[in-house]
Amino acid sequence: MQETEDIDALIALLAKLPGLGPRSARRAVLHLIRKRSLHLIPLAERMQRVAETARECLNCGNVGTQDVCKICTSTERENGELCVVEDVADLWAMERTAAFNGRYHVLGGTLSALDSIGPSELRIPQLVDRIASENITEVVLALNATIEGQTTAHYIAEQLQDRETVRITSLAQGVPMGGELDYLDDGTISAAFKARKDF
Amino acid sequence: MQETEDIDALIALLAKLPGLGPRSARRAVLHLIRKRSLHLIPLAERMQRVAETARECLNCGNVGTQDVCKICTSTERENGELCVVEDVADLWAMERTAAFNGRYHVLGGTLSALDSIGPSELRIPQLVDRIASENITEVVLALNATIEGQTTAHYIAEQLQDRETVRITSLAQGVPMGGELDYLDDGTISAAFKARKDF
Repeated sequence: MQETEDIDALIALLAKLPGLGPRSARRAVLHLIRKRSLHLIPLAERMQRVAETARECLNCGNVGTQDVCKICTSTERENGELCVVEDVADLWAMERTAAFNGRYHVLGGTLSALDSIGPSELRIPQLVDRIASENITEVVLALNATIEGQTTAHYIAEQLQDRETVRITSLAQGVPMGGELDYLDDGTISAAFKARKDF
Repeated sequence: MQETEDIDALIALLAKLPGLGPRSARRAVLHLIRKRSLHLIPLAERMQRVAETARECLNCGNVGTQDVCKICTSTERENGELCVVEDVADLWAMERTAAFNGRYHVLGGTLSALDSIGPSELRIPQLVDRIASENITEVVLALNATIEGQTTAHYIAEQLQDRETVRITSLAQGVPMGGELDYLDDGTISAAFKARKDF
């Protein structure tokens, strides 16, 4: 419908990004063409550079530019603490909070019989190896509070139950910050009630 | 927070696109890194090409790759019909309907005293010139049904009122396709009632 193959193709490619559709892709492309030197050219260049340099950390699955990522090679991280997350986005979310100063292990998804995703599709064998080789003393299962996430967490906990030196923890469940009871689902309220603590 | 300058910069640039924010930009970048050869590299290349070739049509303001766009140079378009739109996105929307087979004139916005956007910021002088030089017989004011759009339409109609050979029209207002009265605003219902027609 637009007049050039390149512009049409760019819109089609942008429209396939998660969170964008055809309409927002068109708006984005028109915006980019208007801001050619300020936005379009820098964006194209960065994209090219990321395409050339980005890779998955061989150790933890984080995304970076080296074979082993900065978190894995850092000397300032607590040895012995390992946080297991589903996706790189979750790792980044944990990092933004700065609540955790150990290292990570990205599973790359959750177990799913339907999609035939078993433990070895999820870097679970690598996790078991790392726990031994890196002398891990605490594994924090920071999986999503979904059925899939929790099923995967239970499976991992089972795999590790014979290692008595490893403490296995998971994120607390309860009322989120700013949460109003009336807007929370029943599951969250029951979980928060069961885990109630002295005031 | 992420580990590489390039990835961070790419996220920041994507987050500035209309319709995206930091969270969706992060998701998009992780998706692109996962689909490097299928999505990231083609996207970077198209973006580069669009940055090199895209330009505004000198005649109508459409976006294309030539100094004068394909619609303006087409011999299959009705001569004498000119559709005035606010933005290139509106031109594309009109083209998708295939309801109109004349040529376009993109204003590039609406009149706004507050933002000091006057007629000459909006290609209105060029519009007046084109109407004379291209022997236009009908001007369709396809501006948005907003206060700004309609103010601009009235201004343009005023500028053209002494040209007796030019018919000035505007899009009909009324109930949109599939519209349910109970969900429409009062203004739309009154406009549709006033413009009622024999069944």
